[in-house]
Amino acid sequence: MPVPTIKYYVREGLLPTGELTSPNQASYSDVHERRLRLVRALLEVGGLSVSSIRDVLLAVDDPDRSLHKVLGAVTDRLVPRYEAAGEAPAAAREKVEELIARRGWAVDGDHPAALALTEALAALERVGHGAFAEVLDDYAAAAEAVAAADVAHVGRRLGRDDLVESVVVGTVVGDAMMAALRRLAQVDRSARAFDGRE
Amino acid sequence: MPVPTIKYYVREGLLPTGELTSPNQASYSDVHERRLRLVRALLEVGGLSVSSIRDVLLAVDDPDRSLHKVLGAVTDRLVPRYEAAGEAPAAAREKVEELIARRGWAVDGDHPAALALTEALAALERVGHGAFAEVLDDYAAAAEAVAAADVAHVGRRLGRDDLVESVVVGTVVGDAMMAALRRLAQVDRSARAFDGRE
Repeated sequence: MPVPTIKYYVREGLLPTGELTSPNQASYSDVHERRLRLVRALLEVGGLSVSSIRDVLLAVDDPDRSLHKVLGAVTDRLVPRYEAAGEAPAAAREKVEELIARRGWAVDGDHPAALALTEALAALERVGHGAFAEVLDDYAAAAEAVAAADVAHVGRRLGRDDLVESVVVGTVVGDAMMAALRRLAQVDRSARAFDGRE
Repeated sequence: MPVPTIKYYVREGLLPTGELTSPNQASYSDVHERRLRLVRALLEVGGLSVSSIRDVLLAVDDPDRSLHKVLGAVTDRLVPRYEAAGEAPAAAREKVEELIARRGWAVDGDHPAALALTEALAALERVGHGAFAEVLDDYAAAAEAVAAADVAHVGRRLGRDDLVESVVVGTVVGDAMMAALRRLAQVDRSARAFDGRE
């Protein structure tokens, strides 16, 4: 880890200063190292801004905040948004709210991910493919299975810093993994369905 | 649809010229309209370049190419790549090949999506989270369910142009839907697992 990077993080308030062991040398403890890994994950994998990272770290360090709330503080910032073209129509919003109710998910209808989903549904309507929404429940069931695997994986981490780091990496890289796997499975299914068809 | 846009597509060879009904007016048939919708989907939803679109249309119009090959020509161009930092290590490549064999997927190990998955696994290793690969089979099973829903949906389309258009939209917007749904399901599962935990 290059020293200028560490100094930059310290200057930006993302990392406490190390303990001075000589005028030119600071020593960093395990706690420092864990925090450094978390900051890098938020910055390099999550793509968060320095000020967002500051907010996340405040949440991580707040002893009164439950782990679930801490994870919310970070994952709310990791939701990719489908490009919005004006306000999404009420019909798309309703579809998302109905889906959340139907799945029994304990999540607000104005969660950033619910808004991202609303925008995706609105985009489908806009390009005349509203019928694709018929796959929503199949997707939701798959998302539940994936989320259960995600939560089981990160739940094995003990410290908050470790757990939050693991959630950032798993959330961001997990999207890329899922998109790639969906493509591979599509090739397989497409071969079975369409290979003989002209 | 603005006339300059149509003229631009015609000029770029993405759309045949309409039938002249008077010196200043061209008439466009249903075939034209379907092709226009497909070009817009490839350009605006898929984000393909004009020259990529030309290649895709050549494939769509090639009577000797099976539908499966046509879909490959378009979906190969719709794979989001996880940023590569040098060549992925052999271990990551092997993991992907083993997964493809384990799932029995009829797909090449050097398919663009297999490379994208390899890069995601390499990224996990790089940031010290190689253990996250333990979720791969859960993800793959979910991807199979999603791909089955995708293929069932597009399989209802009759014409090639319609079907390809539907695949482009479903593939691209489907990624956004899946990422959003995964986040919502994570919030729900996280609440159950971590709400009381500090």
